[in-house]
Amino acid sequence: MLTTENTDSIVTRLVDIKSPEDLRKLSIPELETIADDLRETIINTVSKTGGHLAPSLGVVELTLALHYVFNTPNDKLVWDVGHQTYAHKLLTGRQDKFSTLRQYKGLSGFPKFKESEYDAFETGHSSTSISAALGMACAKDLKKDSNKVVAIIGDGSMTAGIAFEALNQAGHLDKDLIVILNDNEMSISENVGAMSSFLSRQLTSKTVRRLRKHISTRLKDLHGVGDRFLNVLKKSEENIKSFFTPAMLFEALKFYYIGPISGHQLEDLIPTLENIRDNVDGPVLVHVITQKGRGYGPAEANPGNYHGVGPFDVLTGVPIPSSSPISYTEVFGKSICTIARNNPDVVAISAAMPAGTGLTNFSKEFPDRFFDVGIAEQHGVTFAAGLAVEGKRPVVAIYSSFFQRALDQIIHDVCIPSLPVTLAIDRGGVVGDDGPTHHGVFDISFLRFIPNLTYMAPKDENELQHMLHTAISLPGPAAIRYPRGAGENVPLDPDFVNLEVGKGELLRQGEDILLLPVGNRVYPAIKAAEGLEKLGINAAVINPRFIKPLDDELICEWARKTGRVVTIEDNAEHGGFGSLVLELLSKNKLFAVKTHLLGYPDHFIEHGPQKTLWKNSKLDSPSIINAAMELMKD
Amino acid sequence: MLTTENTDSIVTRLVDIKSPEDLRKLSIPELETIADDLRETIINTVSKTGGHLAPSLGVVELTLALHYVFNTPNDKLVWDVGHQTYAHKLLTGRQDKFSTLRQYKGLSGFPKFKESEYDAFETGHSSTSISAALGMACAKDLKKDSNKVVAIIGDGSMTAGIAFEALNQAGHLDKDLIVILNDNEMSISENVGAMSSFLSRQLTSKTVRRLRKHISTRLKDLHGVGDRFLNVLKKSEENIKSFFTPAMLFEALKFYYIGPISGHQLEDLIPTLENIRDNVDGPVLVHVITQKGRGYGPAEANPGNYHGVGPFDVLTGVPIPSSSPISYTEVFGKSICTIARNNPDVVAISAAMPAGTGLTNFSKEFPDRFFDVGIAEQHGVTFAAGLAVEGKRPVVAIYSSFFQRALDQIIHDVCIPSLPVTLAIDRGGVVGDDGPTHHGVFDISFLRFIPNLTYMAPKDENELQHMLHTAISLPGPAAIRYPRGAGENVPLDPDFVNLEVGKGELLRQGEDILLLPVGNRVYPAIKAAEGLEKLGINAAVINPRFIKPLDDELICEWARKTGRVVTIEDNAEHGGFGSLVLELLSKNKLFAVKTHLLGYPDHFIEHGPQKTLWKNSKLDSPSIINAAMELMKD
Repeated sequence: MLTTENTDSIVTRLVDIKSPEDLRKLSIPELETIADDLRETIINTVSKTGGHLAPSLGVVELTLALHYVFNTPNDKLVWDVGHQTYAHKLLTGRQDKFSTLRQYKGLSGFPKFKESEYDAFETGHSSTSISAALGMACAKDLKKDSNKVVAIIGDGSMTAGIAFEALNQAGHLDKDLIVILNDNEMSISENVGAMSSFLSRQLTSKTVRRLRKHISTRLKDLHGVGDRFLNVLKKSEENIKSFFTPAMLFEALKFYYIGPISGHQLEDLIPTLENIRDNVDGPVLVHVITQKGRGYGPAEANPGNYHGVGPFDVLTGVPIPSSSPISYTEVFGKSICTIARNNPDVVAISAAMPAGTGLTNFSKEFPDRFFDVGIAEQHGVTFAAGLAVEGKRPVVAIYSSFFQRALDQIIHDVCIPSLPVTLAIDRGGVVGDDGPTHHGVFDISFLRFIPNLTYMAPKDENELQHMLHTAISLPGPAAIRYPRGAGENVPLDPDFVNLEVGKGELLRQGEDILLLPVGNRVYPAIKAAEGLEKLGINAAVINPRFIKPLDDELICEWARKTGRVVTIEDNAEHGGFGSLVLELLSKNKLFAVKTHLLGYPDHFIEHGPQKTLWKNSKLDSPSIINAAMELMKD
Repeated sequence: MLTTENTDSIVTRLVDIKSPEDLRKLSIPELETIADDLRETIINTVSKTGGHLAPSLGVVELTLALHYVFNTPNDKLVWDVGHQTYAHKLLTGRQDKFSTLRQYKGLSGFPKFKESEYDAFETGHSSTSISAALGMACAKDLKKDSNKVVAIIGDGSMTAGIAFEALNQAGHLDKDLIVILNDNEMSISENVGAMSSFLSRQLTSKTVRRLRKHISTRLKDLHGVGDRFLNVLKKSEENIKSFFTPAMLFEALKFYYIGPISGHQLEDLIPTLENIRDNVDGPVLVHVITQKGRGYGPAEANPGNYHGVGPFDVLTGVPIPSSSPISYTEVFGKSICTIARNNPDVVAISAAMPAGTGLTNFSKEFPDRFFDVGIAEQHGVTFAAGLAVEGKRPVVAIYSSFFQRALDQIIHDVCIPSLPVTLAIDRGGVVGDDGPTHHGVFDISFLRFIPNLTYMAPKDENELQHMLHTAISLPGPAAIRYPRGAGENVPLDPDFVNLEVGKGELLRQGEDILLLPVGNRVYPAIKAAEGLEKLGINAAVINPRFIKPLDDELICEWARKTGRVVTIEDNAEHGGFGSLVLELLSKNKLFAVKTHLLGYPDHFIEHGPQKTLWKNSKLDSPSIINAAMELMKD
């Protein structure tokens, strides 16, 4: 039961909240004070650390209400994506560490089992929460437990097929499962898809709004009345069935639909959630409207820009400038526009991240040739295959770790029929602060074995231009992986050329050892070769350019000449570029060649600055020198 | 316009149909004769070749109507899955080759570009058709072409998330796209999911049926009247909006919904499709009811058993007996039941294939602990993670080539949090007649690099039992890959034991060369070793049992002793087990060891009997002997 009056004159603040247990003693005005404190702490901290500001600000009241109403950690909160969990972290015993958010060795930006028993499921990628929560609800039934399971999922995340798959099974199984649809009318940037416009269409209908308000009023009146509450709600629902409402969609999937209700009014949220907790069985979907960036002016005004941020000035919201050179992503974005101006068949596809993948300008210059498929990597790749089969030249730009979602479509729909689709694999390699769920350290391992695929990695942003041009000119599938962040600050050729497929470049001659780096490890390898020279070791350096087909001739020639090869990659050492080189040497019977593979070891890489992670994993120049020196002893 | 009378006294039969052009000259009674001929040819051929009988029999009239109404190949038919295309193949110039269906070097069981220009998109896995068709529709608009694009998708395929992702974007883009929902109220076996029961609920409502019939009658009356047809249809639709109808779901997604109509009455199908072709713009969904196995008694009576069949007696439908020993799938199915009897936490998950994965008995014995998630591999794996986090021991049984759909979920939801989920990877290796889309020849390559995963492959069906027992006992994620078809006919131990993790077994000592096969290549390697002995070469044979963690010590010891290693795997040679062994040798500085990797080369493997494919790809005993002899010369 909700305490409506504060009997204590001392004002409870966030610092007093050691666990959600402390929250449950508070009144609504006190909770509102906590909400203010949460926002202040989040804004101040993220202004220093960077992070997912707008999503976390949007769910401050929702987080308070959920921990207030549900008996966490016994009741389970499964946060979709998990980037909106800053308030959750602050309320569950992590205030003292909150300043370390997303810092090396500090708190993760996502839920982590090892951080807290309140983190019921680990997330990072979107749209998994209903699946996981349904599994937990089934386990609960099998164990005859009575705890509640709540998934909190954004409307953007709802565009992913896995969320639909989960809704479909949940409706079928009829388990007790509460899904909170956190509807902020956007995913990371503007939302797409029929469902999204359908949700917002509903919201702009005044009649429906009025009826909803009526339901919400009844809801409060009926607080605790159980069956009557349900009946009235049911009746009111039926009255508005003739409208197009989200209820239609979710009830078609056998979910009981409640909403929309404001996600910022604790006096609405708390009784609604209490009623659901006490009176509703089976799968229920609560449609909650929140405002991304709520409570911070600059973020409210421009939530897309404050989804994920670097450090900024709290007063103005202005990012603290960093003078980094042009990024690979920016060069990709410019290059595809240049190519598209000369080739009308070029089209571009993004999976809900046009800005993140550098496609904003393309989408403005070529609106008819740009397709944002939503958070739908599987569909995006097969959709591209459909475009390709009819003569278009689709470029699908997705982060490396999200391409994991489309492996089957890459194999089955693109590479088996050998269609000319270009996969632009952004964020190949460690990404930094987002950590293990977002590091793109597996794409070489999960793509390099696929027949018909041409697979490149540029040593710098200039080479990226030529590779994109090359990829689009090929008759079959191509992929280019390039890293997050700044390029090498090299001059950009104004004209793009087609690189010869399967030809690497010998960057440095040397008779003692061959350094064989791939992609963004080429420059560190050159630097290492220069260092080795001072130590009296002459290292050859080859930039393979093509992971597939590999330049067998050039690599074998120099492996033979030097008898020693060190491979270096911003990818797992298992199954990656190094093991490909080992296959090549074996195939060519270069058995005597001594080898050393540098890549990420067999564990998930923590979050932290890219440079730190490269150094720790022995992928920087000093480590390359050490590995080479070591191999020289063999 | 439909010709209603046959002006020619000579009866046109299937043999006269050289292309769909010939169909378009016929009357409905003549088309019905062709339908009979198609059924007879399909039943007779599949009774000899085996194949997907029931799906193809179900769409005979639909196929005729589509080719009759649409101007193929200019208009595009995208067949979801593609296993229902036998009538399509027979109507598009492939009658002379039809007896070679699914035979080595014969016609594929799926659409293939190289077979026919009428095969607008290549398929094999389910649920890709709307994505591909939408891409084709977008390309058409960009090219300002006026052709039509039609996707034909089963209700089972609709449970996959990618289909929803595609519907969501299609409704948003508002392109001309015709989706035929081929609703036979089942996928491969009984259908699951809220949507499915929702579709059939509609169909059992008499009132709705009556209204639908009314619409359908009007439709014929209004044949060719354009706008009036649409208005009437729209109005009638609105009259039944207060019912729960599939229209709700699809119209929520901005599709224009028409149906349900019978998929076996050409006199209904043809005018409906003509009206849609001529009068409907934007995305439209036509709900067509078909009967799987239609026209063949035994298949009508038991469509699940006739989905995919081996050779059978046409008169009775009885399978022609083959005396094959117990299969890996059967042993898996028995073993999981045995284990589940002693461990109440064991639960099993199938993605719409309980029979195919051997889980039918489990689902009967433990109905509460069995979950069929539908064709939803992504959700299935994350759902398992949810069960695992709450203390259950989920076993997810999916074919190797379909696990490609769940790579991200395996990495992100199972292996990063290190949850005790067991992946039972059936059909690891070539599968035979289904060909490249279904061969499971990549799972070692796309799983072996994932941290925290324990990954096994049994040499025979007895070892599979112990591996399953071991996997379920582990505190973290495990995977077991085993092949399609018969085991080695070895005795099955009655008691299961836990294998020591990371320990291989030395099966044979020998000082000349080490044969290092994995999984189903172990017995051929033993046989090869026996052959080599006769040739004076003493080969050691190690069964590694664990792909991950590999038995470094044992393998290095014998690699050192022999100086020569041949690896053999029923998997791509790139990124597979062999390259893992090369990594091991490099890491342990065993540079002098000579190696030869046997696995599938860098192209997609055609369809054909497993034995033929193993022989062709040099994975059988004679090839192992040759490889070893060759390596002995180095």
